[in-house]
Amino acid sequence: MYFPNEVEIIEVGPRDGLQNEPLPISTEQKKQLITQLAAAGFSRMETASFVHPKWVPQMADSEEIAHFCKQLGITFIALTPNIKALERAIAANAPQIAVFIGASNTFNKKNVNKTTSESLDDCEQIFARAKAKGMFVRAYVSMAFTCPFQGEVTFEEVKSVCDRFSELGADEIDIGDTNGKANPRMVYERFSRLRDLYPNATFVGHFHDTEKMALANVVAAMQAGVEKFDSSIGGLGGCPYSPGATGNVATEELVKMLEQMGCQTNIDYLQLQKAAPFAKSLSSRIEIHAKERL
Amino acid sequence: MYFPNEVEIIEVGPRDGLQNEPLPISTEQKKQLITQLAAAGFSRMETASFVHPKWVPQMADSEEIAHFCKQLGITFIALTPNIKALERAIAANAPQIAVFIGASNTFNKKNVNKTTSESLDDCEQIFARAKAKGMFVRAYVSMAFTCPFQGEVTFEEVKSVCDRFSELGADEIDIGDTNGKANPRMVYERFSRLRDLYPNATFVGHFHDTEKMALANVVAAMQAGVEKFDSSIGGLGGCPYSPGATGNVATEELVKMLEQMGCQTNIDYLQLQKAAPFAKSLSSRIEIHAKERL
Repeated sequence: MYFPNEVEIIEVGPRDGLQNEPLPISTEQKKQLITQLAAAGFSRMETASFVHPKWVPQMADSEEIAHFCKQLGITFIALTPNIKALERAIAANAPQIAVFIGASNTFNKKNVNKTTSESLDDCEQIFARAKAKGMFVRAYVSMAFTCPFQGEVTFEEVKSVCDRFSELGADEIDIGDTNGKANPRMVYERFSRLRDLYPNATFVGHFHDTEKMALANVVAAMQAGVEKFDSSIGGLGGCPYSPGATGNVATEELVKMLEQMGCQTNIDYLQLQKAAPFAKSLSSRIEIHAKERL
Repeated sequence: MYFPNEVEIIEVGPRDGLQNEPLPISTEQKKQLITQLAAAGFSRMETASFVHPKWVPQMADSEEIAHFCKQLGITFIALTPNIKALERAIAANAPQIAVFIGASNTFNKKNVNKTTSESLDDCEQIFARAKAKGMFVRAYVSMAFTCPFQGEVTFEEVKSVCDRFSELGADEIDIGDTNGKANPRMVYERFSRLRDLYPNATFVGHFHDTEKMALANVVAAMQAGVEKFDSSIGGLGGCPYSPGATGNVATEELVKMLEQMGCQTNIDYLQLQKAAPFAKSLSSRIEIHAKERL
């Protein structure tokens, strides 16, 4: 088996983790969480989303959060699903942006009311403008394994999105088990094929712990050469379109496993132990999921 | 990566899972659980313990449970840590017995008030008598990775127990992460070394889900050729000497992962979904652990 000496963990809790919380979280609370995470040593963090606040009210303070991140000296990633969002990200001096496309056509229709192909066309403009501004572009392939609406997503569907992201010059391609139903074999096989198809691309693994397979999926992805993973402090997050899907893999659990395996994360685990209870206290979803599991 | 076509799951819930439940569980409830598990298709199950009832009162009805298993036609395993227990197992017509030794000397002293070496000497008599009776002997190496009292357990400690079990003719050697602190790399490396040292031995992996790494540890053990795993319905169990250690890997979670990976278990998952809530309802420990995690 392959255990890399070093693994990069990208913390996505402040954006992906909190965006669907049904109760409002104050800007001060978000700043407190980001401060704690910065103290743990993350080199990159997803903290902002410039989606219109009508759709994601929880992220309406992204300009202020972006400003705060810059003050703290954090390289933050801002979600920019359309050109208007990108302009806000540029105005906020975001160093890195993220776009996402579902590999499942059905999911894209339900999520953004566009086909995969239409969504990809929109990306062209976003990529061109972001690249011209020297921004780092993270490209998410959501629902890259299964989809709550159509079941298994074919590898061909994933490949067609990756082809386009690759052509457009994505700096990293983030393969997401957004539905939380991938298993280690599927993860290993898909990442192996992707690595063979795009030997120069940088892939990131993004796993949810719905079936308690997230850590196993990380280990499987590593065997296909993946050395970057997203995680969310306290296991915050989950897909609102995916009934029963619990949160992202918890940062503290992922870091613990990796460090114990001798894969350096350069994250301070003791700081995470302080941040995790605070992160969970912000969520009204985590307790519900834990109770459902009893 | 290696994904075997077939994997054997040995259900240990009725013994290992229930033995430390603080509140009494009736013989009828145990029979109901065993009946549900038999319906799911387990070829082998650990259901009885002939430890003196003074030490494990929960298992005082093991004769009746053994009789019930024979009526149901189940190949059951009975724990027999000493010669008196073995005589009871013989009288109860147990087809398979299990003995256990901690790889950690400290653990053995605390658990059975004997050194590892003294415990192994006792095993000689048990093995000889059981073998003479044609019984299948399962030999557990407990605390084979870490120990709550001494921290990491060395590979040499594990090896010395395996050496002896191997000499005594164990039919299978069950390597237990009793303390729930093993990680996938440790699991892969230890099982790889064991396979190389004892190419003809049959190894079983026994993982606890304390750190949510149980499924990842199963996948890692597979990479070292392990194709037999213990699990406990509903995640029942845990080590009473290991503070905070939650239960065994849950059978339903393990079976789901393996089947999804194309590794046949010959277990009916729908039956497990019925059995798991009933198993959890018998436990007063599971709810406590879930609450501690919040």
